[in-house]
Amino acid sequence: MSTPESWAYLNRVVEGPSRALQELLAAGRDADEIADGVRRRASWLGGLAEETAARHDWDRAEQDLAAAAEAGARLLTPEDADWPRLELDRAFGFAATGMSEHVRTYQSDAVTPHALWVRGGAVTPALAQSVAVVGTRAVTRYGVEVTRQIVGGLAAHQWTVVSGGALGIDTAAHEAALAAGGTTVAVTACGIDRVYPARNAALLDRIADVGCVISEYPPGTPPQRHRFLTRNRLVAALTRGTVVVEAAWRSGALNTLSWAEGLGRVAMAVPGPVTGAGSLGCHERIRHGRAQLVTGADDIRSLLGPAGAVDAAEQYELQFAPTAVQGLSRNELRVFDALDPGVGRAAQEVSAVAGLPLALTVHLLVDLGKRGLVAREGVEWRRAEE
Amino acid sequence: MSTPESWAYLNRVVEGPSRALQELLAAGRDADEIADGVRRRASWLGGLAEETAARHDWDRAEQDLAAAAEAGARLLTPEDADWPRLELDRAFGFAATGMSEHVRTYQSDAVTPHALWVRGGAVTPALAQSVAVVGTRAVTRYGVEVTRQIVGGLAAHQWTVVSGGALGIDTAAHEAALAAGGTTVAVTACGIDRVYPARNAALLDRIADVGCVISEYPPGTPPQRHRFLTRNRLVAALTRGTVVVEAAWRSGALNTLSWAEGLGRVAMAVPGPVTGAGSLGCHERIRHGRAQLVTGADDIRSLLGPAGAVDAAEQYELQFAPTAVQGLSRNELRVFDALDPGVGRAAQEVSAVAGLPLALTVHLLVDLGKRGLVAREGVEWRRAEE
Repeated sequence: MSTPESWAYLNRVVEGPSRALQELLAAGRDADEIADGVRRRASWLGGLAEETAARHDWDRAEQDLAAAAEAGARLLTPEDADWPRLELDRAFGFAATGMSEHVRTYQSDAVTPHALWVRGGAVTPALAQSVAVVGTRAVTRYGVEVTRQIVGGLAAHQWTVVSGGALGIDTAAHEAALAAGGTTVAVTACGIDRVYPARNAALLDRIADVGCVISEYPPGTPPQRHRFLTRNRLVAALTRGTVVVEAAWRSGALNTLSWAEGLGRVAMAVPGPVTGAGSLGCHERIRHGRAQLVTGADDIRSLLGPAGAVDAAEQYELQFAPTAVQGLSRNELRVFDALDPGVGRAAQEVSAVAGLPLALTVHLLVDLGKRGLVAREGVEWRRAEE
Repeated sequence: MSTPESWAYLNRVVEGPSRALQELLAAGRDADEIADGVRRRASWLGGLAEETAARHDWDRAEQDLAAAAEAGARLLTPEDADWPRLELDRAFGFAATGMSEHVRTYQSDAVTPHALWVRGGAVTPALAQSVAVVGTRAVTRYGVEVTRQIVGGLAAHQWTVVSGGALGIDTAAHEAALAAGGTTVAVTACGIDRVYPARNAALLDRIADVGCVISEYPPGTPPQRHRFLTRNRLVAALTRGTVVVEAAWRSGALNTLSWAEGLGRVAMAVPGPVTGAGSLGCHERIRHGRAQLVTGADDIRSLLGPAGAVDAAEQYELQFAPTAVQGLSRNELRVFDALDPGVGRAAQEVSAVAGLPLALTVHLLVDLGKRGLVAREGVEWRRAEE
């Protein structure tokens, strides 16, 4: 385990994402070693030498960690159990196949983050079943109405709604998730201690209360155009699919959609009136087969697969699974495994052991119950007798 | 040439479309001979014997022709120069390839009509550059607004708008074409002397004034459900493509769209708000790749190709045409050929010789002029010096 200070230092002097840093990590050097190498301009830094040339002596790891703590945030690193490894590996592993033109164009951004600043609850459970809902800042009444309908339907089925915390559709999505008692996650493009846009201060606090706010940038970082684009890749990477609700011709939301494509996620768009320009971008993507047309939460859920399902490869394996338990998807298996044979557990306890949100856990338990794999006795759940 | 009475008799005793009748015609028997055969129950009638068993003595050709004349209509047969042969041959020729599931399901309807009753002007010029615009009877304000925008844009580029004369989107389409000074054609599902729906009496008169009203059924025929479906195939067959503007789940307009697919025409649908059910059918077709998403007249025109273009096969030939004149599309060639070398002609005269509407003729002349193939001198057009 490297020290948090090393990760914080690297996060400060290397603006993510950095392919050079990932290559050093992949080669087996840990964060302490790399941080030390950067400080003393080691010969083995490769591309990281140039990337850190101007910043390497900006050593303020302790101040950054303190500023984050002050803002109620923590630093999450790839060494933490809560690091969303599965999501990031899947997304950037797909990107590495070079199948997407978008990824080929923005190659330097098609790299996993090296650290995340987080305000709020655990990241991995919140993202276990998540979908991005994004769109234009210049919303119409139609866009807001559709966002509410869709997010309400997703939240009712325990889907976490991830968005960018921006004004317009992002705000409508977060608010609708909160109103429906769902979990929601905001991925921002500035330091975790900064509030942008300013008028969403209270909203971001409420998001941190039930889900979390995530940023790839060290405290104090101002939101800048290139960071919005980099942030968009993270929104697409952390979720199973991205839905663009309303986007005109050059909306940034379409960039998130391109990332979803490039990272092997499901890209979806909602059509709208052709009498305004609000849905032009959505129509364009649908027309060119770059996004699937969705009209509501049911469409989205069916494209993303059942509660626990993950992707085509896994589906293929499940299809040939010889036993019911082997046929369980990842999230279902997490819940099933959280029940020791012969021991009853309350849903709350199952949720804690499985590392999944309580509501999603109950949802999956009920589902497993219908398939005869688990049974409820009073308030306790146990594996069904085999 | 067979007599009109023979065709009128066949149109009365054989409810179109009839594959058995088409087979006899294809085998070289003319309408006089077939009519005579039906009257005397000839041995060579094949399937037509059964089709006409109950009706063969219903011999009222003269009354039908008189009733049509009374209503200002005439009988158009495959022997007339104005018979829309090219359109019908292309559509039902494509259907005969059996490529479409819709056509396989409704095989008995995938047959060309044997006669058409027409009220108004010439059919072939009106259809030379035409597109069907159809939709639900249960229109929303959105549907009407979109129809007006689209039809206005099509009419401005000399496209004839064909529809079914029904309430709702059909009415909006016809009215918008008339308001824009365009040509419009109604294909109805009842006798040419009947007005259905009754409240569209004045509209149908206005359509006949600038374009035409067409029916496959003999005078007096009431509109019935199966006839609407058969009529829909004719709307799709006579046009280069069909646009569904607004259609809920089970709208009849989707049937026209299926025919467009089945007859090798371009199937198009306009998206709309997902907050109502009005565009459900459109979204469903787009989602399944059974209709192209279009948002306005420009999209439609670009899918249907340039003013004179017809289809992929023709495009392929044009691509390898060694001279500019050989590179002309069908309609362009009709206009060019209407100008004799060395002789100047007014556009009105060119239009008459080419058998194309005046506005379309002018449109094409201007286009040919830009390409240096024709030149205007005062009010006259002539071929450019070679």
